[in-house]
Amino acid sequence: MQDDTLAARVLKGDRRAIARAMTLVENGEKDADKLLAVLGRKTGRAFILGITGPPGTGKSTLVDRLVSEYRKKGVNVGVIAVDPTSPITGGALLGDRVRMVQHTLDKGVFIRSLASRGWSGGLSGAVSEVIQILDAAGTEVILVETVGIGQSDIEIMNVAHAVMVVTMPGLGDDIQVSKGGLMEIGDIYVVNKSDLTGADAMVINLFGIVRGMKGRSPAVLKVSALNSQGIDVLFAAVEKVRTKFLSPEGQEMRLRSIKGIMMDLAKRRMVDAFEKRVNKHIPLLVDKVAEHRLSVEEAARKLAEA
Amino acid sequence: MQDDTLAARVLKGDRRAIARAMTLVENGEKDADKLLAVLGRKTGRAFILGITGPPGTGKSTLVDRLVSEYRKKGVNVGVIAVDPTSPITGGALLGDRVRMVQHTLDKGVFIRSLASRGWSGGLSGAVSEVIQILDAAGTEVILVETVGIGQSDIEIMNVAHAVMVVTMPGLGDDIQVSKGGLMEIGDIYVVNKSDLTGADAMVINLFGIVRGMKGRSPAVLKVSALNSQGIDVLFAAVEKVRTKFLSPEGQEMRLRSIKGIMMDLAKRRMVDAFEKRVNKHIPLLVDKVAEHRLSVEEAARKLAEA
Repeated sequence: MQDDTLAARVLKGDRRAIARAMTLVENGEKDADKLLAVLGRKTGRAFILGITGPPGTGKSTLVDRLVSEYRKKGVNVGVIAVDPTSPITGGALLGDRVRMVQHTLDKGVFIRSLASRGWSGGLSGAVSEVIQILDAAGTEVILVETVGIGQSDIEIMNVAHAVMVVTMPGLGDDIQVSKGGLMEIGDIYVVNKSDLTGADAMVINLFGIVRGMKGRSPAVLKVSALNSQGIDVLFAAVEKVRTKFLSPEGQEMRLRSIKGIMMDLAKRRMVDAFEKRVNKHIPLLVDKVAEHRLSVEEAARKLAEA
Repeated sequence: MQDDTLAARVLKGDRRAIARAMTLVENGEKDADKLLAVLGRKTGRAFILGITGPPGTGKSTLVDRLVSEYRKKGVNVGVIAVDPTSPITGGALLGDRVRMVQHTLDKGVFIRSLASRGWSGGLSGAVSEVIQILDAAGTEVILVETVGIGQSDIEIMNVAHAVMVVTMPGLGDDIQVSKGGLMEIGDIYVVNKSDLTGADAMVINLFGIVRGMKGRSPAVLKVSALNSQGIDVLFAAVEKVRTKFLSPEGQEMRLRSIKGIMMDLAKRRMVDAFEKRVNKHIPLLVDKVAEHRLSVEEAARKLAEA
């Protein structure tokens, strides 16, 4: 069977097979489910680190530096970069990826950019699926870089074993902490571009916030990724978290990530099925709403119950 | 009945009632459905304009200017600003809203910021619900400002009658058009901050793209919202679209918006119900995946089928 062959090749770490498997799942082809059913039993070894933060904070450069550090240690790395499908996306957001070119010839590094889908529900695109492929292929560390605004960043904390939040000086005097405990997402906080004025103030600010957290003590670090300053300390902080993940203590991180991936897949599967099933009922219901014979709320309920 | 009272007061345009109704739907309280069932039959008059574009392009200032223009004409306006719930959100994103302060005492303007929810599925937060409340309350124009990155921007084009895409010089040499026809989202393209170098080049670039569109001819305009330059032309372009909406020709826009809102509500309703229903199955399935007795894909399928 062709599927088994592809799965077997992925499990051996065959780069072409990995790329093909990713395309398969990203396009939602029908063989994708079978493939994931096979690969999905061979996962659970990779450490998944989510990297998030506002656009322009230098996440891609940081990812690049972390990849270099891991390669020095002979650890193979996967990078998943979630690209926004924004109406008009500035080159700055996507252009950074070009820096990763230095790693593209390295067989110990696998880089994949994923476009977020229109209405994927939850984590953009096929991140959960691509994670499983990389994991099954024997990738030891998977770095998932999200855009830094919106749902994918919230979702990544459910899927990743740990999250690095990247920020920089000049993003406003305070950090937005009021919104639903969002500062609790990070295991490591990085103030990047530490050569800019305000870096120390931001670190102090973050320390103040972190100190108030109950039962958690995330790291707060000052880094200049572009000038390669502070990368050693950052890498040590990441490795500290990964060491915990690899220990029996890491079981909680493991289970939480499994739950996150499972829920992401389940919801998307359900929404896809929903869209297919209700399609034929839509025009009539829309007409009824337009004619004020039904509120849109009632129409939605009818659809959801269908 | 208290609900009817609230609904009746919303229908009369009572500002306190409107605010309370919004809080009700935003918190997902149980009376919200009943309220929307009543209000939802009184909607369909408001013109909904989505305003999207990357952060920092001056969307809020543009919204502010449009509000002023509408108020000069005596048209009452609702503004819904979708705020990102990003781990660390720079002050720049949210601070802009402060400028709207000049309108807060104006009874013809209703402004509401909505936080995007963790996993709302589709359009952030309660946008669809808040639109209905404003519409039922007699609001003639509703401006919905999204963050400019991610799903809410894709969703807004389904819910809004028309979309304004805001960009600015210096966002990269080309505009990202390769990604799934995203440039087709706009009815009006605005190059804001026209005093910056590169504004003309960007306009020419956009004209080139727009010219290639089949059966559509969106406007491309150069504006400096901060210096109030080009606002008159922009306002005329918006009014042209609204005039079409108000004519029999606008029926297509109307139906598409109803469909968008209905699907948004239905999906969220379904996902909420899903989460409640599957909760008890999650721990066992997670354990099975952790023990490699099930792939996460299979576990997700079981959940989706439950």
